[in-house]
Amino acid sequence: MSSPNPSAADPAALPEPSPELLARAVAVRRAATGLAQTTDAERRSALEAMAAALAAAAEPIVAANQADLEAAAADGLAPALVARLKLDLPKLEGAIEGVRQLAALDDPLGRRQLHTELDTGLVLERLSVPLGVVGVIFEARPDAVIQIAALAIRSGNGALLKGGREAARSCSAIHAALRRGLAATAVDPSCLELLTSRQESLAMLKLDGLVDLIIPRGSNALVRYIQDHTRIPVLGHADGICHLYVDAAADLDQALRLSLDSKTQYPAACNAIETLLVHRAVAPEFLRRAVPALEAAGVELRGDASACALGIGLAATEDDWSSEYSGLILSVRVVDDLNQALEHIRRYGSRHTDAICTTDPLAADRFLAAVDSAGVYLNCSTRFADGFRYGFGAEVGISTQTLPPRGPVGLEGLITYRYRLRGEGHIAADYANGSRQFSHRALPL
Amino acid sequence: MSSPNPSAADPAALPEPSPELLARAVAVRRAATGLAQTTDAERRSALEAMAAALAAAAEPIVAANQADLEAAAADGLAPALVARLKLDLPKLEGAIEGVRQLAALDDPLGRRQLHTELDTGLVLERLSVPLGVVGVIFEARPDAVIQIAALAIRSGNGALLKGGREAARSCSAIHAALRRGLAATAVDPSCLELLTSRQESLAMLKLDGLVDLIIPRGSNALVRYIQDHTRIPVLGHADGICHLYVDAAADLDQALRLSLDSKTQYPAACNAIETLLVHRAVAPEFLRRAVPALEAAGVELRGDASACALGIGLAATEDDWSSEYSGLILSVRVVDDLNQALEHIRRYGSRHTDAICTTDPLAADRFLAAVDSAGVYLNCSTRFADGFRYGFGAEVGISTQTLPPRGPVGLEGLITYRYRLRGEGHIAADYANGSRQFSHRALPL
Repeated sequence: MSSPNPSAADPAALPEPSPELLARAVAVRRAATGLAQTTDAERRSALEAMAAALAAAAEPIVAANQADLEAAAADGLAPALVARLKLDLPKLEGAIEGVRQLAALDDPLGRRQLHTELDTGLVLERLSVPLGVVGVIFEARPDAVIQIAALAIRSGNGALLKGGREAARSCSAIHAALRRGLAATAVDPSCLELLTSRQESLAMLKLDGLVDLIIPRGSNALVRYIQDHTRIPVLGHADGICHLYVDAAADLDQALRLSLDSKTQYPAACNAIETLLVHRAVAPEFLRRAVPALEAAGVELRGDASACALGIGLAATEDDWSSEYSGLILSVRVVDDLNQALEHIRRYGSRHTDAICTTDPLAADRFLAAVDSAGVYLNCSTRFADGFRYGFGAEVGISTQTLPPRGPVGLEGLITYRYRLRGEGHIAADYANGSRQFSHRALPL
Repeated sequence: MSSPNPSAADPAALPEPSPELLARAVAVRRAATGLAQTTDAERRSALEAMAAALAAAAEPIVAANQADLEAAAADGLAPALVARLKLDLPKLEGAIEGVRQLAALDDPLGRRQLHTELDTGLVLERLSVPLGVVGVIFEARPDAVIQIAALAIRSGNGALLKGGREAARSCSAIHAALRRGLAATAVDPSCLELLTSRQESLAMLKLDGLVDLIIPRGSNALVRYIQDHTRIPVLGHADGICHLYVDAAADLDQALRLSLDSKTQYPAACNAIETLLVHRAVAPEFLRRAVPALEAAGVELRGDASACALGIGLAATEDDWSSEYSGLILSVRVVDDLNQALEHIRRYGSRHTDAICTTDPLAADRFLAAVDSAGVYLNCSTRFADGFRYGFGAEVGISTQTLPPRGPVGLEGLITYRYRLRGEGHIAADYANGSRQFSHRALPL
């Protein structure tokens, strides 16, 4: 198990929340209780005010980011991290536009999901409500703070936000602007709290009862570390090992296009494929075309013995089948049939997104029914596994946990429900002793 | 943090799954993949066959239970545990009837929850599917094995079942009957596996990837121990600290009836109240009647200073407000107003079920909106917080986690969903470069 800080691998070694952190978390929770009772219009206005305040503070935010970038350069931060840290004016404007789009989404709160008369005068409802308080831990990317803060407020949740140390100045400037924006609205600015030290973000993992969901936005190592060190539910995924299976009945032109897109359109994404499974019957013809095409796109191929016999130069090891490369490497295995492909995915997959390319409706149906991943695709790129592409308007994250919310998660990841029961003095003893009976009559929603 | 075995408090000290346990878990998972693809009728028939096999094996099951009871008596098992361990013919017949009732429930699988055209020829669906494999850990109660096995098969899930050591013979006889029943059906008997050693149940907590949900049925200590030692989601609740608030505008006859029922109808239940909050304005009149009535029902009362001044003999300590007595003890606090009641519940409650007794619609609405527990009740007993009473037909458990499934959980606690995307060669690059646009058109469900 990897950990960003091996000395903290023992949960008992996590710092206890300081009285000051507890007080701040309680304040967020209290403010969130008020936020949960605001109207849709009030939360929409709050988001508009947040957007306006960010726009008004664009200059200091970009300047703060510039200072972070200079410090990062001095510290020799890796170029990939520097790119994610950078928040220039166009990127900020994009993030502000995202806040306005969130304001326009339908209210996820107050929806009646269930309505049952248990007995005369005893009526049960189930209503969508906010989770309460979310704890968000980012690596680099200060614009994510804007997105998550807006998602939280839109869905009626308070948030404890912890940005990366390298983005401290940017996050602080953004947080100040967001709270300034909220000051004149019905939403208490105390709903958004910024944590600044690593000590605090570790201690936050112990705030069960005050924090309802932890959302880690960063590396697999970060997610896994957090999952291992908290009793609070974690929305995230530690692995994205996605497969494309090219069936015997595949349209090979299509299969080639899907392979290239699934691997190379954005290879660092979790929904990019790591392994290509090819039916033995079409492997010679398909690999003859796919190997040069993928190599021309800069992909390093690693094959099993059969794939190597068909032109792949590098042999895959057992480790390759369970590796998320997050880059331009692709393992390739030739399988005897659909069953072997299914067995491979069951064994090595991470239940994220897996696709089949076939023109055979029976093979398609079997694959779609048997693969138990969050996304199971037919004849399209795995890269579509994304909240925006699914039409959710915004994305909290992608979950590879089996329980809902699963897959790309929109606002529904930040809401839950509550049962409301109204009676007229009803007591359980009357039903236990048989003097009254439940009717369990469904009422209109 | 309490732990049934302090020497295992360090997760690193949990035993690694043995090759044999891994093989059995993989076999259950593989069988569950087949089960997930059975029809509603096939799963209904399987439950009928399970019920018939249990009925046919009633004699050996009751005899095995008798042997467990004798061993328990010899070991000096606590009477409460012996009562839960006992499975006589009437109790077994009740459990068998429960299996038949589950067969009659609507199929939770294959429901289309979302249907969107992302673009011409690219169609997204979200379908309800089983979780996969559930791991269930019981203390005593062998009839729970029957209920959970039936719930699992009805919802298309495999199950690893671990009964208490004291119920080993009973569980083994039940498990044998269930598998015998399944043998002639479309459901592979390998879907139900019985674990017998404590070693195995601890190792099961490490089977993430093979087990999708852990359901502990037992003491708070068991639940908390499991939550602290697994990365697999746990359905359960460690605490049930429920409140009844008697408002200034309460009908005091009703308040008295609700107090008695909420506390005494089944005091060991998690949905029984532990604390009574009474508005100062009605406290003298209410407590004058409630104290003798509760004491006559055998309830030991512990009051704050104001409550003691109004006739309660025993002073509550700070610990009382956060204690789940699971028995005939009730703490009583006099509060100045609704706000103080809400603050008390926010601070000490476990977000399980909390009720207000009032005739004031404004107070009712404020309470129902502000208390963020799984159940928020008006003028009825907290004892209604139960899957059967809610009309779910069966109960997997009650969850005090904030995320869904929350509160009393029926079959929906054992299902999840999967996204299915069918395309015609669609690739993400076309949308990234602007040559195609998403339509995100809602289609009929």
